[in-house]
Amino acid sequence: MTDQMTRITLARRPEGTPVPEDFGLKKGPLPEVSKGEMLVEVQTLSLDPYMRGRMNAVKSYAAATEIGDTMPGQGVGRVIASQVDGFAEGDIVVGATGWASHAVLPGDGAFKWDKAAPPSTALGVLGMPGFTAWTGLREYGRPKAGETLVIAAATGPVGAMVGQLAKSAGLRTVAVAGGAEKCRLAVEKFGFDAAVDHRAHADESAMRSALAEACPDGVDIYWENVGGKVLAAVMPLMNDHGRIPICGTIAWYSGVNSTEDRLPMAWRNILTKRLSVNGFIIFDHWDDYPDFVEKLAPKVAAGDIAYLEDVTEGLENAPQAFIAMLSGGNTGKTLIKVS
Amino acid sequence: MTDQMTRITLARRPEGTPVPEDFGLKKGPLPEVSKGEMLVEVQTLSLDPYMRGRMNAVKSYAAATEIGDTMPGQGVGRVIASQVDGFAEGDIVVGATGWASHAVLPGDGAFKWDKAAPPSTALGVLGMPGFTAWTGLREYGRPKAGETLVIAAATGPVGAMVGQLAKSAGLRTVAVAGGAEKCRLAVEKFGFDAAVDHRAHADESAMRSALAEACPDGVDIYWENVGGKVLAAVMPLMNDHGRIPICGTIAWYSGVNSTEDRLPMAWRNILTKRLSVNGFIIFDHWDDYPDFVEKLAPKVAAGDIAYLEDVTEGLENAPQAFIAMLSGGNTGKTLIKVS
Repeated sequence: MTDQMTRITLARRPEGTPVPEDFGLKKGPLPEVSKGEMLVEVQTLSLDPYMRGRMNAVKSYAAATEIGDTMPGQGVGRVIASQVDGFAEGDIVVGATGWASHAVLPGDGAFKWDKAAPPSTALGVLGMPGFTAWTGLREYGRPKAGETLVIAAATGPVGAMVGQLAKSAGLRTVAVAGGAEKCRLAVEKFGFDAAVDHRAHADESAMRSALAEACPDGVDIYWENVGGKVLAAVMPLMNDHGRIPICGTIAWYSGVNSTEDRLPMAWRNILTKRLSVNGFIIFDHWDDYPDFVEKLAPKVAAGDIAYLEDVTEGLENAPQAFIAMLSGGNTGKTLIKVS
Repeated sequence: MTDQMTRITLARRPEGTPVPEDFGLKKGPLPEVSKGEMLVEVQTLSLDPYMRGRMNAVKSYAAATEIGDTMPGQGVGRVIASQVDGFAEGDIVVGATGWASHAVLPGDGAFKWDKAAPPSTALGVLGMPGFTAWTGLREYGRPKAGETLVIAAATGPVGAMVGQLAKSAGLRTVAVAGGAEKCRLAVEKFGFDAAVDHRAHADESAMRSALAEACPDGVDIYWENVGGKVLAAVMPLMNDHGRIPICGTIAWYSGVNSTEDRLPMAWRNILTKRLSVNGFIIFDHWDDYPDFVEKLAPKVAAGDIAYLEDVTEGLENAPQAFIAMLSGGNTGKTLIKVS
């Protein structure tokens, strides 16, 4: 234990893909804890694609991060001082710690982790990504046995969970992933029925042919994680009354690269096939989180739901790990081991 | 009465905006009527934007019209020979007559019109357009008192009905229409709270400023009739949890004119604002049509729901009237008085 706190800040707003110089590293004394708060020593930090959006000045669904502020994020850690009833020194908690070695959390902003599954799963398969998959598939995907689901970033923490939940509901599941190794993982570890390597199908029409082959009965649910080429390729394959939950558009986070207006194509497909397209933000659904953990934690602990973690050691390496993740360099849930 | 039948055919597939040469006129003997059918002398024919889509070779939600075939469409007419139980000579019926002076309809493809409202209303305010408005607003618009609705083609038969239904549900209703006269009609005849003239706001940002001024509390329901510039302008004004029922994209029917890819913008708005975008085709909902007529016909007959018809005399003038309608040259429901 130390009396110093380290944090990674937003040094400047990235243009396109972030570079290491967009981040800063600051040290300072440990913060004081007031009534109703606890001080947490962060053990593991979660890196997620949504954070790229927070680096822009534009208000998204959450406020933009200000220059000089700590990068936002979820972490798990150990309580080292508590002035909150019900939380004691030594408790393991999950909360919005930010990219930092220590964090002050309010009592209603900390979730005590007392499950059989390891604490790091509270950031991945049993955390925001897994909960996103569970909520979005139920509410906006509305899967029916015999249907076909397509998802990109399929070995990521959201994709892997969506695939496993859909498979267990009786759907044909088709993964899109980058590279032969991730395609192998999608099928062998996460049980997808087929996997399409987007790196092996550089242009949209090659991607569409590969997807059409993997989806002989068309596509009923396209889970939108990426936008870009995959979306353009899958739209014409959608079946009537298909559903598209929009969870992220990572391919567009760092800029737009098509010179063709694809909105008319998308709108025409939505209209003529009576598609249902719903954006959703998991922060609207937190009330259901305890129910999700209750139901899924035993399955994770028993090994019935597979997950994969990509762990980088050291808070100071978070920017590099984040940049690598945005270009698909991670395999599984990206985590930083902080202490 | 004549023993000749006249019909307007698709002579060739239009490129972009249709021209008169894309249509043919054919005459022939009156068709024979078999058991289970009736012969109808068409009195009034409906022209609707969706017909433009049918002229393309591409399969849309309905099969494309073949070259040489009668242009498809709904009409009202008088039964002049019937071999269907329950339908007699002299009955007024509504059905898929096509662009023709006469049509053979099967018993289950004819709806007997015995309401107090005039038969022509069965093609507009009480027909497919009115029913489209009623169904789409209820199921996909989900209006709540105090919200704001924006609709383009607001003085058209769908738009006028959506506006009146939303207004009576307690919403602020904002019309987009082409020209000062249609804007006046929108407010004075159809009760919209405000109207924005899209001809007076040529580019997207001018349109957006005008809409922002007309919608001080943002937009909760954008009823999509047009696509194009209006959609691009309204997207950033959408409120969280807004709804976009997609009913048509007339601005794009004859080709696409933006060089910027607007799909990322649309997808980002849908995601960050948790919008619900639903395409729908009224043909999926015909089971509810009798219920709609039962509820709405008395209001139309009593003058509680306003409507406007734009009537052209003579079947041979249908192509010109259709072309004019596609560019907004009509005012109200476009009808052809056939006989």
